[in-house]
Amino acid sequence: MFRNFKAVEKTAYGRGSFNKLSEILAPHRNSGEGYLIFFVDEYFEGKEDFTARIPLESSDKLEYISVAEEPTTELIDTLRDKYLNNHGLPAGVVGIGGGSVLDVTKAISLMFTSEGSSSLYQGLNLIKKPGIYACGVPTISGTGAEVSMTAVLTGPEKKLGLKCDWTVLNQIVLDPDLIATVPDNQWFYTGMDNYIHCVESMTGRFKNTFSEAFAFKSLELSKEVFLDLDRKDPKSDEKLMVASYMGGLSLTYSEVGVCHALSYGLSKVLHIHHGLANCIAFKELEDVYGDYVGEFKAMVARHNIELPKNLAAGWSEETVEAMVEVAIKLEHMWNHAFGENWQEVLDRDRIKNWYKRM
Amino acid sequence: MFRNFKAVEKTAYGRGSFNKLSEILAPHRNSGEGYLIFFVDEYFEGKEDFTARIPLESSDKLEYISVAEEPTTELIDTLRDKYLNNHGLPAGVVGIGGGSVLDVTKAISLMFTSEGSSSLYQGLNLIKKPGIYACGVPTISGTGAEVSMTAVLTGPEKKLGLKCDWTVLNQIVLDPDLIATVPDNQWFYTGMDNYIHCVESMTGRFKNTFSEAFAFKSLELSKEVFLDLDRKDPKSDEKLMVASYMGGLSLTYSEVGVCHALSYGLSKVLHIHHGLANCIAFKELEDVYGDYVGEFKAMVARHNIELPKNLAAGWSEETVEAMVEVAIKLEHMWNHAFGENWQEVLDRDRIKNWYKRM
Repeated sequence: MFRNFKAVEKTAYGRGSFNKLSEILAPHRNSGEGYLIFFVDEYFEGKEDFTARIPLESSDKLEYISVAEEPTTELIDTLRDKYLNNHGLPAGVVGIGGGSVLDVTKAISLMFTSEGSSSLYQGLNLIKKPGIYACGVPTISGTGAEVSMTAVLTGPEKKLGLKCDWTVLNQIVLDPDLIATVPDNQWFYTGMDNYIHCVESMTGRFKNTFSEAFAFKSLELSKEVFLDLDRKDPKSDEKLMVASYMGGLSLTYSEVGVCHALSYGLSKVLHIHHGLANCIAFKELEDVYGDYVGEFKAMVARHNIELPKNLAAGWSEETVEAMVEVAIKLEHMWNHAFGENWQEVLDRDRIKNWYKRM
Repeated sequence: MFRNFKAVEKTAYGRGSFNKLSEILAPHRNSGEGYLIFFVDEYFEGKEDFTARIPLESSDKLEYISVAEEPTTELIDTLRDKYLNNHGLPAGVVGIGGGSVLDVTKAISLMFTSEGSSSLYQGLNLIKKPGIYACGVPTISGTGAEVSMTAVLTGPEKKLGLKCDWTVLNQIVLDPDLIATVPDNQWFYTGMDNYIHCVESMTGRFKNTFSEAFAFKSLELSKEVFLDLDRKDPKSDEKLMVASYMGGLSLTYSEVGVCHALSYGLSKVLHIHHGLANCIAFKELEDVYGDYVGEFKAMVARHNIELPKNLAAGWSEETVEAMVEVAIKLEHMWNHAFGENWQEVLDRDRIKNWYKRM
């Protein structure tokens, strides 16, 4: 598989780097109408000790983003039109939050320079112009959104990313202090999103030595974080942040697999949050991911995570069929997991069987 | 230590990616006078099976670069003036070779847009404008030049890099096939340059969790390459190329140390090639690098490398003093290796003693 991947242009990593955000953004305030929009996870609304640290200048705007549902094309279009009509083209956008907030930031950066609805651009390389300057500050680790070339949006017809080189952020600020206060469950599910990325990345067909090196190291860091270290150990947040970064880079030359395909079905049909959906699916995949599933269960046990059980008992046949329908269409994931002839080892029944175990 | 590091914009890794060079360069041929200059290690001169694969178009230029001596400011200035006067501003430059060729490519890219001699810009952030498009294709692994923000040049007064964000290459093409034919000694010395980068990076004061993760993984890959794998195993070249990439990234948040400081003295005074000079110094540094030195010696033994012995017997007191003089001035390396109060554990005598063991 040949890929020529676009990297995030500038990366600031380290405790306290959030305090440098003002300095980092300063050279990027001069284009368009000279203002920045900060998209901030609504989790921080009212948390003055945090919001006071956001380097807002007088003409800047702050927009809280709800992450109850994953970002939609409608949200992106509405926000873009609102700012363009009322304030003109911003100099840049800054996302402070988890994967959804970073995806909003990446998508809207592109849509400030591309006309029409963002739903027109869901897919690979449909965007034809660079967006405006975009900076991402993750406040939770594990999604890989900080380094990925996609901004996943749910549109009227499909859930699919705006995927191109220009989707990649111009700047990321990785400050381990910012993930210290994430609630335990969310911290765990999102950390497992990365753990699962790595397992899927290194067990499939598309991997190469580059992706393997990043996946193995990320997995090793994840194991330290979730099996050895105390969460209060400062090294824990530092390592988790590097693990997410490396896990994301691993996917640059590989692909997710069975767990993510099943997880997409759970999210699309039952609106289960991505991180949790992955965990629900992964624990049933011993026939595909072997000992990694046992290791995962040890992490679940160590952190007293109560994963939902016997969900399938409450699902109608139609619900299961609808999830199978979503999952089976993700051909690139099956191709990666089982090879070109994946249809020889996978049919609707096998997928249905996985769902029925959940 | 806060750093906001600039990454190589695009990275193509994988066997056969050199065959995609034409496609990779195509979008970058339209600026300036629309031609590219290929700087190629003189090692390839006359090797038609290789040179025929360089995607030269009719107006492009090919310049073989001698690597007998490290690149000088004079070389850069002369080349820049020659091309500007005869052909106008190129659209971009492409370096195909080892660390020296990549440094020539990085430096001349900057000097095509900055006036006067390159010796005026030796130092940090003295360059005030971006250079022209620069692509690097390493044909040997271990220098880290493919990802670093410096282009080391020997000038009339000092050996120092043009160091700024714009020094970083726009594109790298990492094709493990290209390093398969490197002569054994050079392959070993340059691989050890990276091994030593990693040891120095992770044992000093400036490191953080990011640099440690990259250094540990790079070191692990290096050990596989030099202690376990047969050089003919295809995985060997693939892993060495990733090790060099990761080792280079490790230094982004750390620094080299004692070995490189001593090595600079050997190179400056005795013109010993950087990779070999590192090896000569490292084997005497058990008091600083402990078990890593034993591991290094095991690699030397496994590959039947004959490192020069009893060199010091042939050195005059003046020669040793001259090397001490070069080494002791590299304060950032001593600071990294021993901390701010390095002068409490290091004096000219200790440095002299290391040289006398060589």
